[in-house]
Amino acid sequence: MIYEGKAKKIFETDQKNILRIEYKDSLTAFNALKKGSFENKGRINRDIASLIFRYLEKKGISSHWVADAEPVSMMVRKVQIIPLEVVVRNTLAGSTAKKLGIAEGKVLEKPLVEFYYKDDALQDPFLSDDQIEMMQLASALEVKELKVAALKVNSELKSLFQKIDLNLIDFKIEFGRDQHSKILLADEISPDSCRLWDLKTGEKMDKDRFRRDLGGVQEAYFEVLRRLEDVLRKEI
Amino acid sequence: MIYEGKAKKIFETDQKNILRIEYKDSLTAFNALKKGSFENKGRINRDIASLIFRYLEKKGISSHWVADAEPVSMMVRKVQIIPLEVVVRNTLAGSTAKKLGIAEGKVLEKPLVEFYYKDDALQDPFLSDDQIEMMQLASALEVKELKVAALKVNSELKSLFQKIDLNLIDFKIEFGRDQHSKILLADEISPDSCRLWDLKTGEKMDKDRFRRDLGGVQEAYFEVLRRLEDVLRKEI
Repeated sequence: MIYEGKAKKIFETDQKNILRIEYKDSLTAFNALKKGSFENKGRINRDIASLIFRYLEKKGISSHWVADAEPVSMMVRKVQIIPLEVVVRNTLAGSTAKKLGIAEGKVLEKPLVEFYYKDDALQDPFLSDDQIEMMQLASALEVKELKVAALKVNSELKSLFQKIDLNLIDFKIEFGRDQHSKILLADEISPDSCRLWDLKTGEKMDKDRFRRDLGGVQEAYFEVLRRLEDVLRKEI
Repeated sequence: MIYEGKAKKIFETDQKNILRIEYKDSLTAFNALKKGSFENKGRINRDIASLIFRYLEKKGISSHWVADAEPVSMMVRKVQIIPLEVVVRNTLAGSTAKKLGIAEGKVLEKPLVEFYYKDDALQDPFLSDDQIEMMQLASALEVKELKVAALKVNSELKSLFQKIDLNLIDFKIEFGRDQHSKILLADEISPDSCRLWDLKTGEKMDKDRFRRDLGGVQEAYFEVLRRLEDVLRKEI
């Protein structure tokens, strides 16, 4: 094992540029001040992330995904993670709505891309493009590339989720550089990292159920997986 | 009177597009949680701001300054203030150093421009360029124009202060749109809105003396004025 995070363990493999990510059943919120877990959470998130990565690959978006490994792992290309949480918002919710004094649920005219510095001790501060460059976390050109990639992911995911009656409010993704400095989508995409509101009932189908003690966390995650499997069975 | 702020009062005049700004003796910090005042503070800041505006005008940077009005006022062109605090940093100090976990005093390779949303109730949150556009506070083109203008002000001020043995660490400025939507430098530039460190002694010569209870606030402000008058006597 080379790393253990809040929801994942990462292992080296016998292949040089391939890692194995094991998805844990734990989930955390508020910079790990709130902790929880539920049965099969690791497998459900692995399955969702895997379906999404494979779907995005078909749409021309490369990620670190290589293959699933049973029971709860994913084989991925080794990348050096760019220490930025890249957030795309279609509708305002969470920290940005609060910071700007705008009611949650305001639909944006165009999607907004935000960057947060991945640093637990500093509580993941929000950064401007110029601050990212100043901190040498990514070049100005890479920041532009990250924005374009994030908006492309958003556009594909928005239409994918729409097909399964989920409104993609916002999501967080991470990118890494492979050994040739090529930027790849990495980490995961799951109800841990997306806000998904049911288009018919308005119900939250994501980690906000855990953050806000709404109950039915496991059921919501499982329902997202079920719907994705339904619509993607033929496509992937 | 049409407005009273933390350090200024603004009055209409009998001229349509001219306002009178009266500088108060009060000074505040930490979103007005800390309050103070000293004698002649209003006049000293008015004098400093006026000298700087006139100097910048000669360097091709237009501001709202029209004339001084005794004893503690300034006649200015009426503008609609863009609700952004535009901060330029040459050396890291204050909130950004803290947010990024970097020791105060780190000299930046190139100046950094930051924008904060002028909203006391929200505690002036830090905004990215994309958030400014989303909030319709300024267009993407105006944001670029503000950055260019702020960097030009920085370049002129840095060399001006260098001549009087002061290191310009950072400063905050504001801009407004006149009746033709032309963007003008507005508000003020003074030890209230700049960090100035004495190049020989390293002493702070600005509002940090008040913020951090270092004493000698009035003396520092007066010394900045004295040095500016000395060097600008011939130039303006």
